[in-house]
Amino acid sequence: MYYESGNMNQETKRALAADCLERIGQEVTLAGWVQTVRAHGKIAFFDLRDRSGSIQIVGVSEDLAKVVTNLNQQDVVEVKGTVKKRKDAFVNPHTPFGSIEIAAFSLAILSKAETMPFDMAGKELVLELPTLLDHRSLSLRHPKVSAIFSVQASILEGFRKMAEKFNCTEIVVPTIANIATEGGAEVFPVDYYGHKAYLTQSPQLYKQMMVPIFERVWTIAKAYRAESSVTTRHLAETTQLDFEIGFINFEGLLDMFEEVAVGMLKHAENASKAILRSFNIPPIGFEKIPRFTLSQAQVIIFKAYKRDVRSQKDLSPQDEIDICAWVRKEYGSDLVTITHFPTKKRAFYTMPDPKNPEFSLSYDVLFRGVEILSGSQRIHEYDKLVAAIKTRGLDPKAFDMYLMAFRYGMPPEGGFSFGLERITMKMLGLPNIRQASLFPRDMERVDERL
Amino acid sequence: MYYESGNMNQETKRALAADCLERIGQEVTLAGWVQTVRAHGKIAFFDLRDRSGSIQIVGVSEDLAKVVTNLNQQDVVEVKGTVKKRKDAFVNPHTPFGSIEIAAFSLAILSKAETMPFDMAGKELVLELPTLLDHRSLSLRHPKVSAIFSVQASILEGFRKMAEKFNCTEIVVPTIANIATEGGAEVFPVDYYGHKAYLTQSPQLYKQMMVPIFERVWTIAKAYRAESSVTTRHLAETTQLDFEIGFINFEGLLDMFEEVAVGMLKHAENASKAILRSFNIPPIGFEKIPRFTLSQAQVIIFKAYKRDVRSQKDLSPQDEIDICAWVRKEYGSDLVTITHFPTKKRAFYTMPDPKNPEFSLSYDVLFRGVEILSGSQRIHEYDKLVAAIKTRGLDPKAFDMYLMAFRYGMPPEGGFSFGLERITMKMLGLPNIRQASLFPRDMERVDERL
Repeated sequence: MYYESGNMNQETKRALAADCLERIGQEVTLAGWVQTVRAHGKIAFFDLRDRSGSIQIVGVSEDLAKVVTNLNQQDVVEVKGTVKKRKDAFVNPHTPFGSIEIAAFSLAILSKAETMPFDMAGKELVLELPTLLDHRSLSLRHPKVSAIFSVQASILEGFRKMAEKFNCTEIVVPTIANIATEGGAEVFPVDYYGHKAYLTQSPQLYKQMMVPIFERVWTIAKAYRAESSVTTRHLAETTQLDFEIGFINFEGLLDMFEEVAVGMLKHAENASKAILRSFNIPPIGFEKIPRFTLSQAQVIIFKAYKRDVRSQKDLSPQDEIDICAWVRKEYGSDLVTITHFPTKKRAFYTMPDPKNPEFSLSYDVLFRGVEILSGSQRIHEYDKLVAAIKTRGLDPKAFDMYLMAFRYGMPPEGGFSFGLERITMKMLGLPNIRQASLFPRDMERVDERL
Repeated sequence: MYYESGNMNQETKRALAADCLERIGQEVTLAGWVQTVRAHGKIAFFDLRDRSGSIQIVGVSEDLAKVVTNLNQQDVVEVKGTVKKRKDAFVNPHTPFGSIEIAAFSLAILSKAETMPFDMAGKELVLELPTLLDHRSLSLRHPKVSAIFSVQASILEGFRKMAEKFNCTEIVVPTIANIATEGGAEVFPVDYYGHKAYLTQSPQLYKQMMVPIFERVWTIAKAYRAESSVTTRHLAETTQLDFEIGFINFEGLLDMFEEVAVGMLKHAENASKAILRSFNIPPIGFEKIPRFTLSQAQVIIFKAYKRDVRSQKDLSPQDEIDICAWVRKEYGSDLVTITHFPTKKRAFYTMPDPKNPEFSLSYDVLFRGVEILSGSQRIHEYDKLVAAIKTRGLDPKAFDMYLMAFRYGMPPEGGFSFGLERITMKMLGLPNIRQASLFPRDMERVDERL
């Protein structure tokens, strides 16, 4: 078999489905997974899936038709056959390789699949979320499910391209720490050689420490939050896309993260056109992103929706949905920037607004009804930072190495952090963030139910 | 000040040191950290470091000389001045911007640094490792220390370029799991909502489950090992660069990872030329990588070094040093591939060699005396995999979701994993792996000493 050819030319022996468009009339060897089987008397068809997509295989002889009829979904097979153009009446315009098929003359089973616990043949995989996740290593094989993670990969790539554009240096931050990053209670304790340690709530403190080294840094890092409630938009383990930038002010930060958000989303949208079409997702509205303070946003919600949230300290999930809908309608933008959250509601390192210290130089970006980015100008003056730590009832001694960075020369700086799973969810209109994580962790599940 | 300009053009106002080479005679505004101060009577100099490098600043007036003389190392300053070509006698050929200097006419301190606990002015930062790590957020500022992580960033970039070349899809794998990946005892327990969970020893099981989804996947992931000994080449938290590939055989895997290793290292070497020169590192020997079985390598060591290790089940650290030195001398290669480790010494998912099942279709790559890659052809047949799990005294029930991937069609597959910190260490000739991790974790330290 081709994969025993023992050299890197094996790909020239094994053709991918995508290669066949340009090999009409030629003999090819394909290999992949059986998607669907359709038997019509003496002829039997199946769709073979490989990493390039799906292609129709026809077992033309009576013997082969019998073999095909007995195939299981997800069997791994190797097929030798001839690439044929389909007659016009049989062209399937809904699939990339629908104008061709393979007339198979031999078929070998490389790995036999048991009978699937659910049907993978449909255009959609209709399963309840718990069932979908109980069978994660199977349900991910459905093209409509795996497509989510193709989009996710393109978001990551888009983010890295923007990091490169802004001349940021990649850093690798630890996930085991001796303090809770933000002093919160929602941390996971780790038994670290008999000592108590924690999983980092964010790469925040480490990326800040790196500003005096590289000025501009980025990282794709894990963040852990022991959320004690089950919602459709929180996970216990998430992936953050982070920038931290020195020698910048608040306006500069707003400009930068909006440019990063747009660049990243445009890249992902361009790379995922066919998938977004199959999910019936309209193009992202990339009009100039409007900026509102929290108070302004609350007034808008009051006027537009007659809900008085003006005394609230944050936006509720419904507020985020409403303000996004309003911005989309009024500005044509799927993104909106909200600034100046109450200082007390943000982490200790957030810089209060010098003009009104009750509010902070903080910001969120909302995308289609949910927050996907958070950040702030930071307190870069040592004395003020120590005071802010104390105000939260935290012990500055626990932040010794972090504070060291500020005692020895720290420029004005700030940063921001995107939530990968939330962006993925909103790009594809998924109802639950668990669908946007390959192996989601929450209080009820670590692969298997707890 | 420039960073209050409130728009993305601030960079056009703030010049970087690197910009000055092409702005001779012009007025510029620079900002960065004070590296070293040298006072000579009425003239005082200092080196200003920004993210592009260091540049000499001259305080020409008596007033400015006084200000400069009183600067601390690591003060953050803003300087306005004129870019001047140095006289030939004063050109410093050892630094990229040594042909120019800034004649400063104004200087503002943006952030005052305390007196440094050690001197940062020297070409080398001579500190004992514990002191270096106790002051990590400071010691990283020394150009010779930060350079290590510029190299590390280029290794990551090189790896991603190779992943793209081989048409792999990026995946995000979890780090909290309900089983110890490889059944070993060296795991960190996590208190997960009152349930027992573990930090993943590797992304292994997850990347294998992704083969039936994308065929070829890559990830940069954390791996946690509760190593109970302190060595110069182990960390508790490391970064792995992983591939997992479907439809491939052993020879195909050898070809692929050698190509990935060479491509990644060449990229990093090219991107880091000046740094490698400053570390006096000779070019990497990229001759064709020789391949030996473990037994062959042991015979070579016996013949070349008169040490009889032929009955050993693995290579010792000294064996790795010796075989690498011998290969470098005989083949001109800094890399060597060792295959066929005893099946019992490798993880359960490793495929035994059909010709002699006592040995396995496993491999390591050694680079300048240390293993930087490990991997294998995997067992892809469900029954054999279950048997292998049982042989190790593990319970197949604990691997339910993982095994599901094999029950429903898994092609022949294999993969490999690079250790980022080890590659960094060996590219730069560092004696201890802790120097190759921004914030190293071991049994004695989580930022602060335990």
